[in-house]
Amino acid sequence: MAADSPSKTSKVESFMTSDLSGELSFLVARMRAIGSTRANDALKPLELKVRSYSVLSLACEKVPPTQRDLADFLTLDPSQIVPLVDDLEKRGLVTRMASPTDRRSKVVIATEDGRNLYVRARRVTAHSEAETLSNLNEEERTQLRELLSRVALRPF
Amino acid sequence: MAADSPSKTSKVESFMTSDLSGELSFLVARMRAIGSTRANDALKPLELKVRSYSVLSLACEKVPPTQRDLADFLTLDPSQIVPLVDDLEKRGLVTRMASPTDRRSKVVIATEDGRNLYVRARRVTAHSEAETLSNLNEEERTQLRELLSRVALRPF
Repeated sequence: MAADSPSKTSKVESFMTSDLSGELSFLVARMRAIGSTRANDALKPLELKVRSYSVLSLACEKVPPTQRDLADFLTLDPSQIVPLVDDLEKRGLVTRMASPTDRRSKVVIATEDGRNLYVRARRVTAHSEAETLSNLNEEERTQLRELLSRVALRPF
Repeated sequence: MAADSPSKTSKVESFMTSDLSGELSFLVARMRAIGSTRANDALKPLELKVRSYSVLSLACEKVPPTQRDLADFLTLDPSQIVPLVDDLEKRGLVTRMASPTDRRSKVVIATEDGRNLYVRARRVTAHSEAETLSNLNEEERTQLRELLSRVALRPF
């Protein structure tokens, strides 16, 4: 296998100039893979992954999300949200409560422990994000964040 | 269900200003979901999805990829690549051939039919990409592509 490495590297370099490399959907998929691999590794000591971290983050917001809100905003299937919330609830990090605005629906709210863990996890993800973006300067990072927000944060 | 829609919209809007919305990994995941949903829909008439399209695209390059190259470059597991290539091969769009540089390994090469389909598919994905980016102007699109390339096209 070791013998494969040099040719593998040069191959990947040749693909860097492929037609596909100019396509946004490909670049975004690859950036997501790079970023989430790194973030999952970094979050491991806190027993979180990017997805459970995202749920915890939204459960810390002033307006607490329903499970449906979480699915919509995180672009996941509701069936993927349930086990994430179950796991966080079992660990005492979130609770399901009747919504203050609509008693018929339940919202997911972070507990004190959940909020404390979130503060630590946020530091970890900020650090791993900085690593992913290491070859962009501060201005370029802001620019990238701003452009992505305008594309990704429209209702769709 | 219809009664849920207004509150759902306003909730999602409130999450737009959440801490999470400032995080790159979240923006990238959301953009990927938006882009690939749209591209998959657009590619449906050609019986392709974003993943099989990506394999076909690389199989059209001058330096043909091995299955391992495809897995590395598309950040997929090799076990995910095999059925994609199988499907394209069954449809006569690609063939597996002994590598011209290393007879022990096989490369994936597009057939004439595969190349013709790719040309049509590329037009489709270009159109769906333009839709995804509709609220960025030409200069901003180039900027976004350039910034993403610098982050995503490093070997990792």
